[in-house]
Amino acid sequence: MKDIYISDLASFDEGKVFDGYFLVLLKQQRTTKTNKPYLNVILGDKTGQLEARVWEPNDPRIAKDFEKGSVVKARGSVSRFDERLQMKVDQVRVALPDEFDKMDLMPSTQYDVAALWQQLESTIESFTNADLKLLLRTILADPAVSEAYREAPAARQLHHAWLGGLLEHVVSLLEVADRVAAHYPLLDRDLLLTGVILHDIGKTRELSWEIGFDYTIEGTLLGHIQFGTEMVDKAVEQLPGFPDRLRTLVIHMILAHHGKLEFGSPKLPMIPEALVLNFVDDLDAKMQAMATEFDKCEREGKSAEEMTGRVWSLDNRQLLNTKKWLGAEKV
Amino acid sequence: MKDIYISDLASFDEGKVFDGYFLVLLKQQRTTKTNKPYLNVILGDKTGQLEARVWEPNDPRIAKDFEKGSVVKARGSVSRFDERLQMKVDQVRVALPDEFDKMDLMPSTQYDVAALWQQLESTIESFTNADLKLLLRTILADPAVSEAYREAPAARQLHHAWLGGLLEHVVSLLEVADRVAAHYPLLDRDLLLTGVILHDIGKTRELSWEIGFDYTIEGTLLGHIQFGTEMVDKAVEQLPGFPDRLRTLVIHMILAHHGKLEFGSPKLPMIPEALVLNFVDDLDAKMQAMATEFDKCEREGKSAEEMTGRVWSLDNRQLLNTKKWLGAEKV
Amino acid sequence: MKDIYISDLASFDEGKVFDGYFLVLLKQQRTTKTNKPYLNVILGDKTGQLEARVWEPNDPRIAKDFEKGSVVKARGSVSRFDERLQMKVDQVRVALPDEFDKMDLMPSTQYDVAALWQQLESTIESFTNADLKLLLRTILADPAVSEAYREAPAARQLHHAWLGGLLEHVVSLLEVADRVAAHYPLLDRDLLLTGVILHDIGKTRELSWEIGFDYTIEGTLLGHIQFGTEMVDKAVEQLPGFPDRLRTLVIHMILAHHGKLEFGSPKLPMIPEALVLNFVDDLDAKMQAMATEFDKCEREGKSAEEMTGRVWSLDNRQLLNTKKWLGAEKV
Amino acid sequence: MKDIYISDLASFDEGKVFDGYFLVLLKQQRTTKTNKPYLNVILGDKTGQLEARVWEPNDPRIAKDFEKGSVVKARGSVSRFDERLQMKVDQVRVALPDEFDKMDLMPSTQYDVAALWQQLESTIESFTNADLKLLLRTILADPAVSEAYREAPAARQLHHAWLGGLLEHVVSLLEVADRVAAHYPLLDRDLLLTGVILHDIGKTRELSWEIGFDYTIEGTLLGHIQFGTEMVDKAVEQLPGFPDRLRTLVIHMILAHHGKLEFGSPKLPMIPEALVLNFVDDLDAKMQAMATEFDKCEREGKSAEEMTGRVWSLDNRQLLNTKKWLGAEKV
Amino acid sequence: MKDIYISDLASFDEGKVFDGYFLVLLKQQRTTKTNKPYLNVILGDKTGQLEARVWEPNDPRIAKDFEKGSVVKARGSVSRFDERLQMKVDQVRVALPDEFDKMDLMPSTQYDVAALWQQLESTIESFTNADLKLLLRTILADPAVSEAYREAPAARQLHHAWLGGLLEHVVSLLEVADRVAAHYPLLDRDLLLTGVILHDIGKTRELSWEIGFDYTIEGTLLGHIQFGTEMVDKAVEQLPGFPDRLRTLVIHMILAHHGKLEFGSPKLPMIPEALVLNFVDDLDAKMQAMATEFDKCEREGKSAEEMTGRVWSLDNRQLLNTKKWLGAEKV
Amino acid sequence: MKDIYISDLASFDEGKVFDGYFLVLLKQQRTTKTNKPYLNVILGDKTGQLEARVWEPNDPRIAKDFEKGSVVKARGSVSRFDERLQMKVDQVRVALPDEFDKMDLMPSTQYDVAALWQQLESTIESFTNADLKLLLRTILADPAVSEAYREAPAARQLHHAWLGGLLEHVVSLLEVADRVAAHYPLLDRDLLLTGVILHDIGKTRELSWEIGFDYTIEGTLLGHIQFGTEMVDKAVEQLPGFPDRLRTLVIHMILAHHGKLEFGSPKLPMIPEALVLNFVDDLDAKMQAMATEFDKCEREGKSAEEMTGRVWSLDNRQLLNTKKWLGAEKV
Repeated sequence: MKDIYISDLASFDEGKVFDGYFLVLLKQQRTTKTNKPYLNVILGDKTGQLEARVWEPNDPRIAKDFEKGSVVKARGSVSRFDERLQMKVDQVRVALPDEFDKMDLMPSTQYDVAALWQQLESTIESFTNADLKLLLRTILADPAVSEAYREAPAARQLHHAWLGGLLEHVVSLLEVADRVAAHYPLLDRDLLLTGVILHDIGKTRELSWEIGFDYTIEGTLLGHIQFGTEMVDKAVEQLPGFPDRLRTLVIHMILAHHGKLEFGSPKLPMIPEALVLNFVDDLDAKMQAMATEFDKCEREGKSAEEMTGRVWSLDNRQLLNTKKWLGAEKV
Repeated sequence: MKDIYISDLASFDEGKVFDGYFLVLLKQQRTTKTNKPYLNVILGDKTGQLEARVWEPNDPRIAKDFEKGSVVKARGSVSRFDERLQMKVDQVRVALPDEFDKMDLMPSTQYDVAALWQQLESTIESFTNADLKLLLRTILADPAVSEAYREAPAARQLHHAWLGGLLEHVVSLLEVADRVAAHYPLLDRDLLLTGVILHDIGKTRELSWEIGFDYTIEGTLLGHIQFGTEMVDKAVEQLPGFPDRLRTLVIHMILAHHGKLEFGSPKLPMIPEALVLNFVDDLDAKMQAMATEFDKCEREGKSAEEMTGRVWSLDNRQLLNTKKWLGAEKV
Repeated sequence: MKDIYISDLASFDEGKVFDGYFLVLLKQQRTTKTNKPYLNVILGDKTGQLEARVWEPNDPRIAKDFEKGSVVKARGSVSRFDERLQMKVDQVRVALPDEFDKMDLMPSTQYDVAALWQQLESTIESFTNADLKLLLRTILADPAVSEAYREAPAARQLHHAWLGGLLEHVVSLLEVADRVAAHYPLLDRDLLLTGVILHDIGKTRELSWEIGFDYTIEGTLLGHIQFGTEMVDKAVEQLPGFPDRLRTLVIHMILAHHGKLEFGSPKLPMIPEALVLNFVDDLDAKMQAMATEFDKCEREGKSAEEMTGRVWSLDNRQLLNTKKWLGAEKV
Repeated sequence: MKDIYISDLASFDEGKVFDGYFLVLLKQQRTTKTNKPYLNVILGDKTGQLEARVWEPNDPRIAKDFEKGSVVKARGSVSRFDERLQMKVDQVRVALPDEFDKMDLMPSTQYDVAALWQQLESTIESFTNADLKLLLRTILADPAVSEAYREAPAARQLHHAWLGGLLEHVVSLLEVADRVAAHYPLLDRDLLLTGVILHDIGKTRELSWEIGFDYTIEGTLLGHIQFGTEMVDKAVEQLPGFPDRLRTLVIHMILAHHGKLEFGSPKLPMIPEALVLNFVDDLDAKMQAMATEFDKCEREGKSAEEMTGRVWSLDNRQLLNTKKWLGAEKV
Repeated sequence: MKDIYISDLASFDEGKVFDGYFLVLLKQQRTTKTNKPYLNVILGDKTGQLEARVWEPNDPRIAKDFEKGSVVKARGSVSRFDERLQMKVDQVRVALPDEFDKMDLMPSTQYDVAALWQQLESTIESFTNADLKLLLRTILADPAVSEAYREAPAARQLHHAWLGGLLEHVVSLLEVADRVAAHYPLLDRDLLLTGVILHDIGKTRELSWEIGFDYTIEGTLLGHIQFGTEMVDKAVEQLPGFPDRLRTLVIHMILAHHGKLEFGSPKLPMIPEALVLNFVDDLDAKMQAMATEFDKCEREGKSAEEMTGRVWSLDNRQLLNTKKWLGAEKV
Repeated sequence: MKDIYISDLASFDEGKVFDGYFLVLLKQQRTTKTNKPYLNVILGDKTGQLEARVWEPNDPRIAKDFEKGSVVKARGSVSRFDERLQMKVDQVRVALPDEFDKMDLMPSTQYDVAALWQQLESTIESFTNADLKLLLRTILADPAVSEAYREAPAARQLHHAWLGGLLEHVVSLLEVADRVAAHYPLLDRDLLLTGVILHDIGKTRELSWEIGFDYTIEGTLLGHIQFGTEMVDKAVEQLPGFPDRLRTLVIHMILAHHGKLEFGSPKLPMIPEALVLNFVDDLDAKMQAMATEFDKCEREGKSAEEMTGRVWSLDNRQLLNTKKWLGAEKV
């Protein structure tokens, strides 16, 4: 059973020996300046990534058969190099299937997926628009889709980049969107929430999350917007009485949810629900990026008297954790 | 008492004579192609503006003493010219003070200003942060400020461009921001709501709304962001124990509320509350612009089968009124 | 039978009476400055548009029943006003179905549509890739699609804005693309030409061309890129053995053909065929816009010593007709 | 007393031992690839920065108590690594207060600060506008302000990034602005020069220059434009008769001095003096950046036949030192 | 002799008859709504332009032989229409050569051209660099060039758009540049002033100023930068010993004087002199645009309490005349 | 004779000793972390570049006299470090002139330069426009020009960055342009092809290719567009009867061939031939960049299941090799 996590290692003394289970994200042959071969390895688990070195690849305690994508049991110790942690691996072998739980090996949501899913379903249940309710049920009735929806990250490396991240993001959005819908009488709540549930569903095909998170070739060429509209299209074909205009609006919301052409939406939001979807999607992603950055500063032990580093997904801004900074003010 | 409004005239027969009270927004001497002098006048009331012509300026029934800014009683009839309505004025005189109510003569909020103000005050009352509560009360304790806050439009011609528009916009924002604050634990609710109440308070000095809505020269040179920070500054000087950092954050929210340098904010939002303030401000303005455009189409009798005209404040997009279009679908 | 065209009228003497058949593009009630009602009408035929006035709408020779979209027989004469031609209509009635040919009443291609279509089909015939050949035949086998493909304009008002313009543009592109494919060994000719044939096929649903050219509401909300991918999708579902990757590439070409996100393509060209498709599409549109502008100058009698007016679709540039200007040089 | 400067070390032989006084800008624990701990240190003095390594941190000759911000006496030698100089530190201890002069330890202006200050004061003395003269004297009468004004750098790392840089930049601007004012009768000289003196005064609060140059948190959140307007505001409150419009114009000049919204000015220059201020400020900064780059090439021994490297603050351009290049031309 | 100018007419009573000499800038046949032919004419003189109408083109007092480009003597009176002045022409004939002075008929500099030219020449005289002195003398020795240099406007409609405007702009620049050169030791004064004199010399071929100001076709296709470099090139060919590098730098200054690629400079300024040239050129043009706008407001009788209209060449900004506004403040 | 190329070394075993002839692109003194001096060298040949280290610079087998620009014979072996190949040099001496062929030492076109040149000349021969034929012959008659034209690369590091690259690019363009000219009757073929041949001729002066490829100082200051127009200018001066307008158009094509101001063209294409030149130039450069990237992936052994890396000259896009990916699809 996995009991040591990469995030724990920061506090380990240099040289202290430990065993751990990790996913191999990269394995490369290299040579030292003195022409000695060694292995450069990147290990991952749900708490992060770790650079590792196997300085004696021919030692019999170093298995030959582990590869990118293997789960391994590794023994060694950490050192610090240029502020980064590095593991020196003394022993390594492929782990047995019953020695680990896959969810421990990739970053994944800290929420209960079943509970999130239940929240999604009861939101659909609450719809008064029978057509939209049926559309969503039809799409999610496909077990491959609903399983992928529960597993997929929301992005490769920006916001919600962890297993279950897509679902977590959508459920958060459902709450925000529902609150906003209650405020503006102009909005058709069920249509808005349908847009929330479907806007990123194409990410289940755009991304792969077997070994780390990456784009598929098809995903790079077509994108999650295209996949999403295809999935709606296919479901509507099975629902003969589905109103044409409603279909048009649902697809419009998927097309327009990035809000700007230059962000990859081929259409700008032209209905109130599409406008709100774009706003809350953007807001939720940015709030999550802020929270993630503040957590990172916390873990790195930054003081309340420092701003964060520059955050790429927030236009390279530095941020300030309001509550912490205010709390630290001398009274 | 005013009983005929500009918005009513669209349905009047050409030539039908009527009396009405209007605000004079423009008065110009002109000459016809045949060298005959006439007056070109623009009249306004709370429902809109109307072009008018006085073809016989020397007729004794045409008063000499009305000017831009006068309220007049005018008699005449309408005709249509190039799709626009035009009034032919046969008689006109300056109205007596007790003949009209100023609120009828400029567009003004359809909400009850006293109720909106009450909502603002009870929101402040609900604060747990005593410093922020005191700051807001100090600022609003100045009767000139609070009166202007109740009267000011939120803009010259974009969203909420009517008397009371600023207050209406802020109260709507308070509701949305409160809902969003309840969803994200990262947010300091009282700080966010303080930002909502103060972000546009400088508009009370940037705009004038005596005769139509316009920018003051000082407003054009300095802008409402500068005025807003001055007002906070002045209030804080009266509150000796006010925490320095809290003052910094409140001013930061005012500086950053436009969200982008190119929109006139000298700083980007760097705290969660400033980010949310920018989002809800932008969203509320756009939702209001949509609602205004849909109302306009309704008044102009556009069918459900047409999109709106291009809306400048929404990147010149055309819009579609979802509910109306869906409702019109043949089943 | 129509024998007088709008383009002929420029040379008519003012006041000369004539009869003609026209499509009514607009009909509005208006009032003169002296309060007299009249009709403001826009008439069209395949050579252009003409402003018209009915000064005596109650004359019994003026039919009451003609509307926007009617084809009418009108009698009257032209005058020039502010450099523009205007028709004074003395008589008008709705035309009988056998009095006119619809193709005379809207601008349409000067090429033989049947010949263009034949060229398209023989290009498909020449494919060596059986899957792509079958895909195209499947799509064009739907008579509604192939009829619309022969009729549709390529745009509302930019390049090829006439009946048959889409087909004319595609056939021109096929020739250019075939020439370019012969030069670069990297290119898969059949894939490139498939992209040419399908890239704008969604315009058959994005545009309407019953009365003038306009966007449908669905077209505005979804766009021809979305319609095009739906049409390919639907056809591929009928072709069980169609290779997945080929389907991906065909859809990628449709998505990417505008070449830039800000031009409404949700994906940039990432394969050589998509890159070339974007280039030749853009080039052909611009060459046609140049030719159209030069023709217009010719018709307006501009001399060789003048540049054209500013052309919107060419970044508002002025252009020069090389051959004409060189030919006019004194030797 | 400091007698060896970082700029001297470039010409030292590798291995030659020397003693020097330096400011510690960074101190980090690290580990070699062979797991041996060492210290990574950055030392600074007024001529530049120097990477240093303490390979034996436990040697008794290495003091334990020096930290970031300490001034130390260090003994060791230099080597070259990847074209960069690196110091190997054999001994180090905290320096005694009377062993060094702080001005030697950070880059500082090569001009005489007292003389620059005198020039600033006599410019104010020359004003004919009594209000502006009084305003400036009031602001500079605060010893904290005038001391900071004499010390502050003009920027963290772009132009004039050294102690006294702000004052040096302002005095250079005063000269240029005075010359320009003499040429254009439109300009109010005293107003222009007031803008020059106050435009960057907020940098005394935006930047800190205790240990290296950095932004304060307040500076990052509010910026020197906001601080500058606050300082004017506070001074004007003490001057009851100060004309309102003059106050508006002075603040406008501060707000607008960056010349573009996207450079962080919330207002564009709308008066001639603000326009000229923006021009000369930008020109002086760029001329100084050029001069700095040419000096750097000179120090690095670049030949006249080479352009400079790319200069970030000049749009990443390469530059050419005209006089040097012309002088080197063979005749 | 011309004694009535267009700028005088604003104060004329409607209907008062006068005679005047004008340049015909446009002459068009038109028809009234009642089908009566009339002439639409635009007349110009050095103070502006004037719309005119000939309502009776067949009256024998209306000459048949005047055309665009003719100078005419016209009799008539003015009226006001939609705030614009319009002349009703009762008599008109082509003027005799000795009746007018061409300089009265197009806007031209208010400075003495001979004095400006003298200033240019004495600046050249002051050079210490013999090569540059010779280069300039060689170029200006061509009488066609020097005559055109004295006559040309600096632009078609932006800054200095009047006869002699180019020379006026250059002489103003020489003064400013000389002042700036005295301040920055980095600058080669003679090289900078050479750049000032030559940067716009290509405008003598880019623009035509026979009848109004316009671009030539060659000017539109090639631009004044290209013409300028050709002129330098041709002169250098006549000067065998002219240093290659000096030639390169002079041409570089011409190429780079617009300062940005998107303003049509194919190269950015890479030497100090080119940087300064771009700055002072831009500054002088903007100062002149400000002065022109303030004059216009003065002529139109705008009060000190109003900002100017939006000025296109200053990013559509509104401006404020500092001195006037300050002077108007109540004390 | 050179028989081992840098591209071969990827497959060499580490430590295997070999001899080779290389061009020295860089030579630097450096020090190891343990203060030992060594040489850092970059070697090049026509297949690429190679980092090399001389760990024993004082070994007598290491010549002292080789420098940047020398051709050397070196003995040593390769190792891999951080995925990059590095050569350890044991012996090195300057090569004798008859030991190598310069064409082997820099990347150069894989086409036969004589054949390409022949193709260029026969295209000129095919012209019907005698003036253009004569112009081109006059320019190419200068042996310095025609030799440089055959040798020059088309760029420093983007497309066609190899000896003969300019000619190869132009000949490819001639073919494409000729095909396009045959399709559009609007085009003057000879003028278009003249533009193709001359558009980049200034690169023969903008770039140097003695030791690696670089910009000359004159090239950086003036650019190939300026050089190209000078060369045309000089040739036309020798051709007294050359039509002025033709000269204008040829120069316009050179000025406008980058297609946008921000790409360094001072004029936009305003004639059909300039538009087509810009299109085919851009297309050919991008097709070549794609082919180069695909070749690189092939050499690096990337599988068909991967996209390429990001390609800078194609907006940092990743690309897919259509034919390879389709071929790899499982059937």
